[in-house]
Amino acid sequence: MILEHVVLDVAPEQADTFLEAFRLASPIIAATDGYIRHELRRCMETPGRFLLLVEWVNLDAHMVNFRQSPAYERWRAALHHFYVNKPVVEHFELAYAHTSPSE
Amino acid sequence: MILEHVVLDVAPEQADTFLEAFRLASPIIAATDGYIRHELRRCMETPGRFLLLVEWVNLDAHMVNFRQSPAYERWRAALHHFYVNKPVVEHFELAYAHTSPSE
Repeated sequence: MILEHVVLDVAPEQADTFLEAFRLASPIIAATDGYIRHELRRCMETPGRFLLLVEWVNLDAHMVNFRQSPAYERWRAALHHFYVNKPVVEHFELAYAHTSPSE
Repeated sequence: MILEHVVLDVAPEQADTFLEAFRLASPIIAATDGYIRHELRRCMETPGRFLLLVEWVNLDAHMVNFRQSPAYERWRAALHHFYVNKPVVEHFELAYAHTSPSE
């Protein structure tokens, strides 16, 4: 399992509109073979900044199954016009994890 | 619950040493009141790049309970000398999440 990581900056006055568009577009990515889960988080320090984290079974699930699919064009059409900078997509492998015993 | 997010860049030849130091230092952060979980992820595209994600019950758990504690000085002493850039710490609130029904 790998984590796709991308920081998304949108115009602050568009943040709520983007969030609604993101909810509506989410079934597109979630239907991909090899998709596990995704979440969108809103930055507490910078208005209009979001963090997208997507878990995939492996790199190909993202880069081939999703990025090279017709569905990706629908995802782009729904969301990419919100971004004020070109998003930088990176992938991360788990190296260490710990959870509080009380959780 | 909030997510602390920080990208950590270390010298690529120090990456394994950093990872071991991170494992050893992890009980320091995990003992903080309001800590939930943390994970360190290794970038697949950029050697020496790591992503630290920490879940806290709220912002004060990180910024007061941890950052203003004597324990934080031990954390700094164990880890900060590895960083080639000053880490940018940001906090994110959950805005949307979805998980595959098959998970």
